[in-house]
Amino acid sequence: MREAYQSDLRHLVDDLVDMASMVGSALEDATAALLEGDLGLAERVIAADPHIDERQIDLDSKTVELLARQSPVATDLRLLVASLRMSSSLERMGDLCAHVALVARRSHPELAVPEQHRAQIQKMSDLAAAALRDAAVVITDRDLALAAQVEKNDDELDDLQQQIAREIGKGQDYTNTQIVDLTLLIRFYERLGDHAVSLVRRVGFLVTGDAVDTLHQSTDVPEF
Amino acid sequence: MREAYQSDLRHLVDDLVDMASMVGSALEDATAALLEGDLGLAERVIAADPHIDERQIDLDSKTVELLARQSPVATDLRLLVASLRMSSSLERMGDLCAHVALVARRSHPELAVPEQHRAQIQKMSDLAAAALRDAAVVITDRDLALAAQVEKNDDELDDLQQQIAREIGKGQDYTNTQIVDLTLLIRFYERLGDHAVSLVRRVGFLVTGDAVDTLHQSTDVPEF
Repeated sequence: MREAYQSDLRHLVDDLVDMASMVGSALEDATAALLEGDLGLAERVIAADPHIDERQIDLDSKTVELLARQSPVATDLRLLVASLRMSSSLERMGDLCAHVALVARRSHPELAVPEQHRAQIQKMSDLAAAALRDAAVVITDRDLALAAQVEKNDDELDDLQQQIAREIGKGQDYTNTQIVDLTLLIRFYERLGDHAVSLVRRVGFLVTGDAVDTLHQSTDVPEF
Repeated sequence: MREAYQSDLRHLVDDLVDMASMVGSALEDATAALLEGDLGLAERVIAADPHIDERQIDLDSKTVELLARQSPVATDLRLLVASLRMSSSLERMGDLCAHVALVARRSHPELAVPEQHRAQIQKMSDLAAAALRDAAVVITDRDLALAAQVEKNDDELDDLQQQIAREIGKGQDYTNTQIVDLTLLIRFYERLGDHAVSLVRRVGFLVTGDAVDTLHQSTDVPEF
């Protein structure tokens, strides 16, 4: 019984890592669809998002069932609470990838991202994807040093968002629609990074028991 | 003992409603600061956001403590799980209000919102504020008919966002910065509405036990 319970807890972690992997694929595909104007790929990312949502519902049901059946305390309880929150962040990250794909679809056959910002957008996507991969490692290994690195790396994503926003503000050669799309896109990638930071902070909560829900306050509000 | 526990559960609901009221004030103030170019008011909204964050941390600590101490099942367990999620939505709504105030601050002494969009932005803010007030009633009274109304009303907020976005796309008289700011602002208000919908769906989960985490899938992704 106890053994089955421990195995259930391990499966939760596996499920979270699986969800992270699904989101990682969605992110890479969404950015490829965006930058290459690949409508079919954009459609596939949009169509796949409900599968990520289903994984969250499934994972959360298991978590609530474990809460009900096992009356966990201490670290096990924290794992279950953290799991509810991490699944929610991952689901939201999936939405953000679908949002990127929707921009790609809406712009088609035009490319939403003007030539001079392509490399920057690819970089933002790469940074967000790396943060997500690192977060999955942090979830599996509870590696708080790597968690700190994920937080630190997020600054680069924020800086890039700011830089692009400044360039848009000063630029001459944009259509209104390009400005709208770029503004949304850089916000989506920045939010993806924020959620990766949120994921690693949940692991911090899990390991140390410290409340860590101040993410938005410290890294989000001051600098959008 | 049992009585104290029931009282603790009622206090959680009161705390959620208090948080909703704090967010409601932040929303009204942020919009007033934005539309009137009131820098002092914008600063106060930004400075107040950490208090909302603290309320969440406090509320979540109580929730986790109740999970640990009382080993709740059935409805009580669902209330605690829903509470964790609702506090997270409310905290995020507070962030979004602070974001609106940040746009007001950044634009000062200019007004971020061009004259022709002022009434629309005020309307978006009013709709989001009404949704939040209704959500607080739903949380207190578990009124699922009102919950359904909140979901329905959210369409109006989405429509307004789409309408403004279309007008921006076609318009001639915008600076790039105005387009960036308006794009962000209408997204912030739309997200505030989404979170209000999320709140009432949590109450639905509480009452019926149905998983309702498909918010983003059904109302958010298709129409950003």
